[in-house]
Amino acid sequence: MLLAVLELVGIAAFAASGAVAAVHARLDVFGVIVLALTTALGGGVLRDVLLGVHPPAALVNWRYLAVAATTGLVVFRFHPTVTKLRRAVLLLDAVGLGLFVTAGTATALRLGAPPYAACLVGMTTGIGGGALRDVLLREIPLVLRREIYAVAALCGAVVVAFGDHLRLPAAPVALVGSAAIVGLRLLALWRRWNAPVARRGPGLDG
Amino acid sequence: MLLAVLELVGIAAFAASGAVAAVHARLDVFGVIVLALTTALGGGVLRDVLLGVHPPAALVNWRYLAVAATTGLVVFRFHPTVTKLRRAVLLLDAVGLGLFVTAGTATALRLGAPPYAACLVGMTTGIGGGALRDVLLREIPLVLRREIYAVAALCGAVVVAFGDHLRLPAAPVALVGSAAIVGLRLLALWRRWNAPVARRGPGLDG
Amino acid sequence: MLLAVLELVGIAAFAASGAVAAVHARLDVFGVIVLALTTALGGGVLRDVLLGVHPPAALVNWRYLAVAATTGLVVFRFHPTVTKLRRAVLLLDAVGLGLFVTAGTATALRLGAPPYAACLVGMTTGIGGGALRDVLLREIPLVLRREIYAVAALCGAVVVAFGDHLRLPAAPVALVGSAAIVGLRLLALWRRWNAPVARRGPGLDG
Repeated sequence: MLLAVLELVGIAAFAASGAVAAVHARLDVFGVIVLALTTALGGGVLRDVLLGVHPPAALVNWRYLAVAATTGLVVFRFHPTVTKLRRAVLLLDAVGLGLFVTAGTATALRLGAPPYAACLVGMTTGIGGGALRDVLLREIPLVLRREIYAVAALCGAVVVAFGDHLRLPAAPVALVGSAAIVGLRLLALWRRWNAPVARRGPGLDG
Repeated sequence: MLLAVLELVGIAAFAASGAVAAVHARLDVFGVIVLALTTALGGGVLRDVLLGVHPPAALVNWRYLAVAATTGLVVFRFHPTVTKLRRAVLLLDAVGLGLFVTAGTATALRLGAPPYAACLVGMTTGIGGGALRDVLLREIPLVLRREIYAVAALCGAVVVAFGDHLRLPAAPVALVGSAAIVGLRLLALWRRWNAPVARRGPGLDG
Repeated sequence: MLLAVLELVGIAAFAASGAVAAVHARLDVFGVIVLALTTALGGGVLRDVLLGVHPPAALVNWRYLAVAATTGLVVFRFHPTVTKLRRAVLLLDAVGLGLFVTAGTATALRLGAPPYAACLVGMTTGIGGGALRDVLLREIPLVLRREIYAVAALCGAVVVAFGDHLRLPAAPVALVGSAAIVGLRLLALWRRWNAPVARRGPGLDG
C-alpha cells in the first residue's frame, strides 16, 4: 500500500520533470502532456519491452496514466510556481529513481534474467524516461552528463541483485537499495559532486 | 481491398514526408530511402514491439517495403516537384494518420489490451514514425509542437475504443474514427489552429 | 571459437567508437561507459526486441558487458592515443559491422522471418548501435550521411538471405557476407566514396 503510493509519487515527480522541460522548450499544452507521459512511463515501457511483458504494464495501469497526465496539466498551468519548487521536484525525482530502479531490477530477476542483465534492465527502468525526454527535446541526456545519476542507479540495482543472490527477503532489500539511491543522489546534489571528465588532449576541442 | 489500397496510400504519404525531410537535411540517396522506410514503417514496428507481435508485421509485408522504398527514390529524384505538391502530401499524411491510428487501436484491443492502453498504442502507431523521423534529423518532433496532431490522433483512437466498448461493428467504427482524424487535421491546417502555449513567466527565457 | 573471438573484437570496436564520441562530447567517465555499452550492445538489443528474444542476448552474455565497459574505460583514460589509432578503429568497426549484420540476418531467418524482413533486422543489428550513439549525442546518424555504410550492410545481409534461400551451408555464407561488408567499407573509406545527394532546387537552402 505504502509502496503503491510511493510509486505514484515517483510517477508524478518524473512527469513533472518532463512537463517543466517541455514548458521551457515552448511546447503547446498537448506536447507538455505527451512529454509528461513519456518521461513518467517511458522507463517502465522500455523495461517491459526488454523483458517481453506485453502490453507494457505502464500502459495498462490507468492510475499511472491519470497521475502523469494530471501532473502535466498542473505544471502547464502553474509552471512559475513549479519552477520555484525545483528542490522539492529534485527530491521527489530521487525517490522515483530509487523506486523504479529497484522495482525494475526485482522484476527482471523474477522473470529469470541473470543478475548483471537484471541490473542493466533496472537502470534502464529508472533512467530511460529521462533519457527519452532529453532526446525528444534535442538535449544530450542529463544522465550522461551530471551528478552521478547513473552511478546511484547502478548501486541500488547491485544491492537488489546481491540481496537476491543471498536469498534475503525482497522487501527490505528493495528498501535498502532505494535508500542508497536516494541518499547518493541527494549527497551528489548537495555537494555538487560530478564524475571526472577526460583530460583534454590532441583531438579534443579545448 | 479498398482498405489495403488506402493503407498503401498512407504508407506512401508517410514515406514521402520522411524523404522530403531527408532531402532537405542533405542526406545521400540511401539516407533518404532509410528515412522514408523509418517514417513509413516506424509506427507499425513500435506498435508490434509494444504488443509482442514478432517479427513486426510492418517488416514482414513486402508491399510496405516496396511502396516506402519506391516513394523515397521518387522523392529523391523529383523533390522540387514534390515540394510544390506540399498540400497533397499533407492531405495524404492526414489519411495515413487516420488509418494508422484506428488500425493500431483496433489491433491492440483485439490482442486484449484495455481501452486506455489501446488508445496509447494506436496513437503511437500513427505518430511514432514521424517522431522517429524528427529525432533522427535532430528536430524536436513536430507532433509535440504543432497543429493539434496528437489531439486528432487521440480523438480517433477514443472513437474506436468506445465503439468497441459498445460492441458496434468494427469496420464502420474505424471509418468514423479515421474520418474524425482526417477532418480535424484538415480543419487545423486550414484554420492554422494551434494548441495554447504556457504563459511566459519567471524561469522562461522570453 | 574464432567466431566468438571475432565477435568480441567487433563489440570492442563498436564500444571504442561510442567512447571516443562521448569523450569528444565532454561526457564524464560514467557517461563514456554508458555510451560504450549502448553503442556496442544497442544493435543486438534492437534485434532481440524485434524478434521477441527476452531478455535480449546482448544483456545476458557477461563477456559482452565486460569487454564493452573495459573498452570504454581504456578509451576514457588513453583517448589521445586512441584518436591517433583512428584507422585501426575504423578497420575493427568494419569487422564488427560485417559480423553483426550477418549474425543478425542469420538469427532472424532461423526464427522464421521472411528474407526481406531478415535483411532489415540484420541491418538494424549492425547499424542500430551507432545510430543510438549519434541520437544520444545529438548528431544526425553518420549511417544516414556517409560512405555507403548502409549499402555495405545491405549487401552482406542479402548474401546471407540468398545463401539461405539456396540452402547453402550457413558458416561459409556468413563468412562471404561479412567479407563483402568489410571489403565494401574499406573500399569506400579508401576511395572516399559517398552516395549521391539530391540536386539542389526550389525549396532547398543552397
